[in-house]
This record gives sequence, C-alpha cells and structure tokens, in this order.
Amino acid sequence: MSNSDDPSPTGASGTPPSSVAGFSFGSAAAGLKKSGARDLGVILAGRDAVAAAVFTRNVVRAAPVDISEQRVASGKARAILVNSGNANACTGTPGREATLATTRYLAERLGIAESLVLPASTGVIGQALPTEKLNAAMAPLLDGLSATGWPGFADAILTTDRGPKVAHAKAGEATVLGIGKGAGMFGPDLGGPPQATMLAFLVTDATVSEAALQRALRSATARTFNEHTVDGDTSTNDSVYALASGQCPTAPSEEQLERALAEVCEELAGLMVADGEGANHAVTIRVTGLRNDADARTIARTVGDSPLVKTMLFGEDANWGRLMMAAGRAGVRFNPETARIVVAGTEIVRGGLALGEAAEAEAAEGMKAPRFDIELSLGDGPGHARVVTSDFGHGYVDVNAGYRS
Amino acid sequence: MSNSDDPSPTGASGTPPSSVAGFSFGSAAAGLKKSGARDLGVILAGRDAVAAAVFTRNVVRAAPVDISEQRVASGKARAILVNSGNANACTGTPGREATLATTRYLAERLGIAESLVLPASTGVIGQALPTEKLNAAMAPLLDGLSATGWPGFADAILTTDRGPKVAHAKAGEATVLGIGKGAGMFGPDLGGPPQATMLAFLVTDATVSEAALQRALRSATARTFNEHTVDGDTSTNDSVYALASGQCPTAPSEEQLERALAEVCEELAGLMVADGEGANHAVTIRVTGLRNDADARTIARTVGDSPLVKTMLFGEDANWGRLMMAAGRAGVRFNPETARIVVAGTEIVRGGLALGEAAEAEAAEGMKAPRFDIELSLGDGPGHARVVTSDFGHGYVDVNAGYRS
Repeated sequence: MSNSDDPSPTGASGTPPSSVAGFSFGSAAAGLKKSGARDLGVILAGRDAVAAAVFTRNVVRAAPVDISEQRVASGKARAILVNSGNANACTGTPGREATLATTRYLAERLGIAESLVLPASTGVIGQALPTEKLNAAMAPLLDGLSATGWPGFADAILTTDRGPKVAHAKAGEATVLGIGKGAGMFGPDLGGPPQATMLAFLVTDATVSEAALQRALRSATARTFNEHTVDGDTSTNDSVYALASGQCPTAPSEEQLERALAEVCEELAGLMVADGEGANHAVTIRVTGLRNDADARTIARTVGDSPLVKTMLFGEDANWGRLMMAAGRAGVRFNPETARIVVAGTEIVRGGLALGEAAEAEAAEGMKAPRFDIELSLGDGPGHARVVTSDFGHGYVDVNAGYRS
Repeated sequence: MSNSDDPSPTGASGTPPSSVAGFSFGSAAAGLKKSGARDLGVILAGRDAVAAAVFTRNVVRAAPVDISEQRVASGKARAILVNSGNANACTGTPGREATLATTRYLAERLGIAESLVLPASTGVIGQALPTEKLNAAMAPLLDGLSATGWPGFADAILTTDRGPKVAHAKAGEATVLGIGKGAGMFGPDLGGPPQATMLAFLVTDATVSEAALQRALRSATARTFNEHTVDGDTSTNDSVYALASGQCPTAPSEEQLERALAEVCEELAGLMVADGEGANHAVTIRVTGLRNDADARTIARTVGDSPLVKTMLFGEDANWGRLMMAAGRAGVRFNPETARIVVAGTEIVRGGLALGEAAEAEAAEGMKAPRFDIELSLGDGPGHARVVTSDFGHGYVDVNAGYRS
C-alpha cells in the first residue's frame, strides 16, 4: 500500500523494471502546483507505438479527453503529455485551444505529427490552462528525457495522492509497466471504460496489433478499475492509456497480454483505493448467490458506495444491519432470510439472523486491518461480484472540504 | 430548524394545535434506550379511524412494516404502537412474533381487535425486540393517554435526532398534525413510497374516504419526502402513517387535504434534512432545462447524493466543477456548454464557463447560511426537479462511525 512513509513508488509486485524498451520519460515543474512540485510529464516512444485508451463516460469531459479520444482512434501515438494541477475541464473552446497549443508545441519540438501526441490533464476544474507556463517548462523537460525517468513522471501526475503509484507485470517475455494517479472521486459507474479522477499510463515492449491492444485494455480495465470505488463519483478526466513499442522479440499471446494489463491495473486500482482520500481501509465486498452477475454487481456497488457502510468501516464496527439495509435498497430481489455475512473472516449472520455479540466483536477486531473482505451471501444463485471500497472518515472530509489544489 | 438549543418541538409553521379531535397520545420509557429516555409511544383513536400508509421499498423490511402493511390494507385502524431503540429488522420469524406479541398485548388492554393496531419500530437492526420490557411499560403509558400528550410521543420516537419534529397545517376547517423522526439514512430512492430511517405519523380530524386518504398521502409523500436526501441510504423501516378521525364537521376537498398533508410532510422532511446527522446546511438543488422531469430528477439526485458535492457544502466552497462532474455522471445527456450555475443567489457559471473568483467568493459567503439554493440550468428544455440535501462533515462521520444506540 502506498503511504507517505514509503518513499519508493513500488507496489506489491516488487521492484519495477528500470526501463521498458522503446520508451523514455520526462518531468518538470511548470508552476501549476502551488507547492512548486513537478506537474508536467511526457512519455515518448522512440518510434510510432501501437496505442489504445479508454475514457470516462461522464457527460462532462475535459478538453484533453476529447482530443485524445479522437487521436487514439488511429491506433498509433508517439507521445503522451500530461499535466497535473489543472484539469482543463469545463473550459469550453478556449480550453480546447489551450490543449491543442500545448500538444502542437511539443510536436514541433519533437518534429513529429501533432496528431501523435495524446494529452491528459488532472486537477482543478474550470480554470484556464496556463499554456505559457507549460510550454516554457517543455524544453528542460525534453532535455532530461530518459529511459529510467519514469519515477519523476509518476510524481508529476499526482494531485491529492499520498504517494506515487506504480505496478508492473510480465506478458510472456514482454514487460508491462503501469503508472497511475488517483485517490478520491474514484467510482465504478463504468460498464466499458473506467472511471475516477484517475489516470493510468501503461507502457509495454510487447508486439501487439492495434485491435488486440484495444481489446485487452478494455477487458483489463472492466474487471479491475471498474470494480473499485472510493466515493462513486466519476471524473471529467478519467483515462487509461496503453502504448506498445513492439521492441520485445517474442510476442505474447493476447491472453497473456490481457492478463498482464489486468494485473497492473488491479494493483494500481488497489493503490488508488488504499489512498482513497483520507482512507484507512481498503475493503473488498464480495456478493454471491444472486440470480446473475449483474444483480450481484448492483448490490456490491450499492453496498460499496453507501455512506453508512463506509462510515461503519471507518468506525471498525461490525454493524451488519447497514450491510443488509444497503443490499436491500439496490433494487434487486433476494430473500433476506437466506443471508450469510462474513466480515474479516468471521461469520456474523446466518439464515438472516445475528450469530451474537461475541462473533461481532471478533469481526470488529478483524476490521482493524488495512485490508479485509466482507462476504454477503444472499441466496443460492450463481451470480457473484466484488467491489473494492474504502472507508469515509475525518480524513475524507478534511481532504475534500478543503481541496482546490 | 430543530436543534438542541430549542426545547420546543415547534416547526416553522408556528405553534401547533394543542390537540386534534379524536386522538390521544401516550409515551413511556420501556428501557430500550440506554439513556433511559422515552422509547415507546401510542396514538389512540377514540373510534375506528380511516387509515393509510406508505412504506419503504427496501427489499429488506422490518417485521412491523410487513405487519402494518397487511393491516392498513383494511383502510381502518384504532391505534399506532411505536418503539425506538430497536428496529426489529433482520430478526426473522422471532422478530415477527415479537411484534405480534406487543400489538396483541396492547389490543387486549384496549379491548380492540389486534388487526386495528399498526406497529412501527426504529433503532438498531438485527437485535431481538424485548417484548417483556415493552409490555411492562404499556400499563403506565395507557394510564397517561391524553389529547395533549403528543409532545411526549414526539420525543419517544426519536433516535439520533437532535430534537423532535412536529408540523401542522389546515385542510379547510380540519387540522393536520404531523410528528416525525429521522435524520441520517434518509434517501430519495422512492417513486411511490418514501424512504429513510424516518417515521412520520399524521393525524387529522378531517372526514375523508379510505381511498382518498391513501391517494392524498401517496401524492403528498412523493413530492416531499421523496425529494429530500441525507445520504441516499434508505431504511428497512421507513413509513408514513395517516389517521383521520372524521370529527371535524366540515369535510375538506381532496385537494385541500392533499395540500395540507404535503405541507406537513414538506416541513417534516425539511426538519429531517436540517437534522441530517451532524449536518450544518440544508441545501436545495434545483435542476432545470432538461428534456423532461425524470432526467432532471436523475441529475438532481446524483448531485444531491455526491459525497464530493456534500463535502464541498460542508467546506462552504463554491467549487462548481464538482457540480458539473456529478451532473455529468448521472447518465443523462446535456450540453455542458449551456450550463448556468447560481449558488446562494450568485451566478458563478454562464455558458459553461466560470465567471471568476469574485463571483465564487460571493457565492461562498452565501454558502455560510444554514439554508440556500443551488440552481443548475443545463439547457432550454422544460424538465425540472429539485432535491433537498445536507452536507457531509465531521459531525456525520462522528454520528455514523459510532452509532449503535
């Protein structure tokens, strides 16, 4: 789990590769963050990379989302240009022109087609993007481009995050490196594309076709980011990008690649939920026994997004009535008298009835862990789903009542 | 607004009537609340009253909800029996038998048919209802029954409320008195019946048919309780009951009665949101310009339930990007570039663009008020809706992380 005591951007998957063949990374402080921290990042492919992306389904979308979506449709890209500190959302035509100005400036300096630059932004909504500041920082950034420069890039994309988020996996011989940001405003209202004030950038040296990369990315995000929630809110800017350089001599199978992308996305999503603004716990809600997976998913999300459940998680109280209440309001029929509930490994409800205070006290002990599971068995149907959620506590209120970075 | 500095259970509608012809009220402390406060209440009609009720649509429903729904179908009732401190929900067959035992005991003491007693409960979920304690308190309660005893009844039904909730209105010559409880776990997922850990009891001396009372109650709750939200969570026990004694010589028109019931429900709902657990603000979100009212309602509820919007209300920050983000994730199409946003009387966004920091600062000043409006105009269609919501702050966390009264 990422936290401020841990200076290394290393996820549970161990030491990340120092580089991924075919890519270099740069970062700089352009002055968008009041703190003076890095807020501009570039990923550059040595030659045209196979590119895919999935984007927020929010009706209100930032300018860079629209522009990237148009450009990535070609299946090719050379560079990704990201800024933090300003979302460039709800900024109308001037906002669109500002993003175009920065990608044009970068393309000119690199001598590549503007349409091969994919922009992304994260930060405050509704403020004009200061293109001069960004462009002024680009020369030093490009001078410092390096194959091992990804930790600086990982810092440059952060906003309210407690720390950088990096994960990696192997797809056969090929490497997948993922760099993400996101904490609050991270929700599961997906279906296809992922959702959140979250950005993730996956680079791989795998050889893969455009169509296969797009399929693998869509599938991997659907079963990872889409099953994680901090507050059910989904951002104007959420995007996951994947670039493949094809430098690794042995091509993975599509299944291998999908599995590696999913592994990386799962770890990044877990890091984001664990970093859910001010959160103390990352809790996996597993719902089983429904007629079908869709019904189970509806219940899992309703439980995972319930403020009363989430304050209960903060309070480390095995108050299972709230789990039943939230499950019951999801709009899905089930028989409450079949309910079995296991919290942090302790069964506390069977046949819809409490098993007593001793069991609840034991479960409450287990709820002190930073990560634990809650299992809701609501029948004998085959439908099952999970969602990973975080608690609502004073930290969430503090971060979100005050945040306008 | 109700708060702990205000000992009088008087709402904005002025001094309530001292009594309503045909009804008496009783209350007692049965020992369900650890504090020793009153936790048992009875409303008794002098003869069979016309009765109607609407109930939670949560799949998980408390025993008294099921029993009351069966009984009120007759259109007649003599008594309402309410306890706080125990919801008698998720208690299975023993729970159902416990409620039946208390209504049978009351019916025997009153010499009336058991089917004329409507039970209601509120409090902790999943614990056995201590029928002996309740029955032991019934004799002193019945001895103290009085036409002017409603303030004690209003106290007896409270749980996490900061104070009692009473409202009244005239329906022609007839009087409507409403007594409610509810704060958190109060959400708008209705459609027909209301929702929340909320109970409301309306008594009137009006003469009205069973069908007309049911129609009027359903209509009144749909446009009042159903448009208020504290946290989107809806309870296993939510119910609104109405009893009419027919003692007033002049019968109101159905329209007059519906309007009076709605007036009382609106005031009770407002008191509940203002008492939203730990809340500082009751904010009316008005959404206009959509294709139809249903679309507007979907957006208003998504905005009103968004944790990021609600922490923003707590922070008194005119961070309108969150309003746009929440509106955009409701799943309803609109053109963000037509958006106009007015917060607490100050226009801060026009044509989808910010009007500047001075306007936002003025809006933020207005957000310090206990009640204010947020207007989201999202097009030029006829569809409009409103929802009344409250802020999420430290008080909400404190109340809900610890609550197991």
